[in-house]
Amino acid sequence: MYKTKITKLLNIKYPIIEGGMIWAGGESLAIAVSENGGLGTIAGASCLSPKDLISKVNYLKSNTNKPFAVNIPMIYPHADMLAEVCLNYKVPVVITSAGNPKKYTQTFKKSGIKVLHVVANEKFAIKSEEAGVDAIIAEGVEAGGHNGQDELTTFVMLPNIVKKVTIPIVIAGGIATGEQILASFALGASGVQLGTIFAASKESDSHINYKNAVINSKDNSTTLTGRRLAPVRALKNDFSQKILSWEYSDLSNENILKNIGHGGSYKAIIEGDIINGTPLAGQSSALINELLSVNEIFDNLKNEFNRAVNKLQLLNS
Amino acid sequence: MYKTKITKLLNIKYPIIEGGMIWAGGESLAIAVSENGGLGTIAGASCLSPKDLISKVNYLKSNTNKPFAVNIPMIYPHADMLAEVCLNYKVPVVITSAGNPKKYTQTFKKSGIKVLHVVANEKFAIKSEEAGVDAIIAEGVEAGGHNGQDELTTFVMLPNIVKKVTIPIVIAGGIATGEQILASFALGASGVQLGTIFAASKESDSHINYKNAVINSKDNSTTLTGRRLAPVRALKNDFSQKILSWEYSDLSNENILKNIGHGGSYKAIIEGDIINGTPLAGQSSALINELLSVNEIFDNLKNEFNRAVNKLQLLNS
Repeated sequence: MYKTKITKLLNIKYPIIEGGMIWAGGESLAIAVSENGGLGTIAGASCLSPKDLISKVNYLKSNTNKPFAVNIPMIYPHADMLAEVCLNYKVPVVITSAGNPKKYTQTFKKSGIKVLHVVANEKFAIKSEEAGVDAIIAEGVEAGGHNGQDELTTFVMLPNIVKKVTIPIVIAGGIATGEQILASFALGASGVQLGTIFAASKESDSHINYKNAVINSKDNSTTLTGRRLAPVRALKNDFSQKILSWEYSDLSNENILKNIGHGGSYKAIIEGDIINGTPLAGQSSALINELLSVNEIFDNLKNEFNRAVNKLQLLNS
Repeated sequence: MYKTKITKLLNIKYPIIEGGMIWAGGESLAIAVSENGGLGTIAGASCLSPKDLISKVNYLKSNTNKPFAVNIPMIYPHADMLAEVCLNYKVPVVITSAGNPKKYTQTFKKSGIKVLHVVANEKFAIKSEEAGVDAIIAEGVEAGGHNGQDELTTFVMLPNIVKKVTIPIVIAGGIATGEQILASFALGASGVQLGTIFAASKESDSHINYKNAVINSKDNSTTLTGRRLAPVRALKNDFSQKILSWEYSDLSNENILKNIGHGGSYKAIIEGDIINGTPLAGQSSALINELLSVNEIFDNLKNEFNRAVNKLQLLNS
């Protein structure tokens, strides 16, 4: 697979980043992704105490000498705590998301930490470049988990943002095949971020029920709830149907939030209740059909990528 | 630009199809697209009498000797009338949409008419192949106008459908640049369908207010209404905000439909009332920044495509 600005910036072999995934993205998965030549990412969202994150960072440092990242979703109340641990333990890369890129970027950069910020539209791409981040991750509406309000798709957001910023762009949302990686390069990306395919891999911390639900899903198996509040993509189930029925009613946002409650993603991803919990997953679920190890996933991506390069060259001849 | 199964099937120079666009897609635009080497399409939705369509077909036949298409959206009550004219006047290509591909396909094919059917998920892609269509047009949720219920994006739908059917696939939804055409080929498409960029071109029948609204729009300027009924993507305005507020309430679908009324797209696209009408447009609006002729659009697409091919080869070296 090609060398790009992202492989150089992050000192990784392949321009493939593991998305920060609450509950699924633990230390085993991050090590596997980094050892296979990508950038593994510890999901800060699941680390509720400094000890949680410190033990994961230490475990990664003693099990791989390759770079890795910690994701800090800035909407969570424990974001400042995560940032402090990242600074103190000098993690190689921090991926900030769901917040203002100005808040942490310069502090991290002064400590020699590379900073990538997740955006979902042109406005935040420009703000991120102004804040001095090293690269942006542009995430389309096909992505699992939290989504931007604008519902821009990967295929349109990327060629638009490419014209608006000069820093490298990693594209995210819906990606699970090598053909899509080649297409991302054609659109001007320097790297890709994959989430759901890793969340459903052997090394993921997620429950086997969750992995099987992703593997057995169809193209229309996910849905976006929370359009009136904070959009979230997950596999359709009884719970998502209930949430949608509350949204398409005259219930207030406060009452909808009260009805939804807390812990839906933990219930689905860790406890395996994929009917009554929230099994966060992207539209790429349609492209994921087997329980694979991270090593097998990387092999597939490379093979698909090379086949796509060859097919394109045949078309061109 | 590459020769593909679609250029061969349709006997056109470039694998670029004009989407069927109510009000915007008249005879001047279709002639310009076909004369520039693509496949121009008369929007059947705007032809309310046989005379309307017959005069357009005759006008095309006397002004270009290149192939062209008629789009028949099967949800409209005048679909049978359109089909009869297409048969009697032996149009080269029919593009059916929003209905069952079994209804007309074999009748057209027996008359030597090529049939393409528009789909928005895997299920209808497979049904279309079974019905014997020559190719499918897979349209993602970024597209302007009527959308499928599943809200699948172009970037995920295409690599999924490629594995499920053997007939050629044209990809649609969000496309307005040559880089996206190359990316579509990388994902396995044999052609692309473009809508909004042609609807906002010099040769389009649309009002200048509509063209300017598309040209001046940003990445977050479109919205999807009608999720409870029949999804439609258009530029955000006062009217779309009203529709959304009705949807997120306990109004019945019948009352929402009554409130929406008829003629919104005519008001916006022909009369130029882009505030109170429905200016149908796709997310590709973000990528359209100038009032151009169809000839200039084709030049841009070819240049962008070739630049993207060269950039990809540089990455590979």
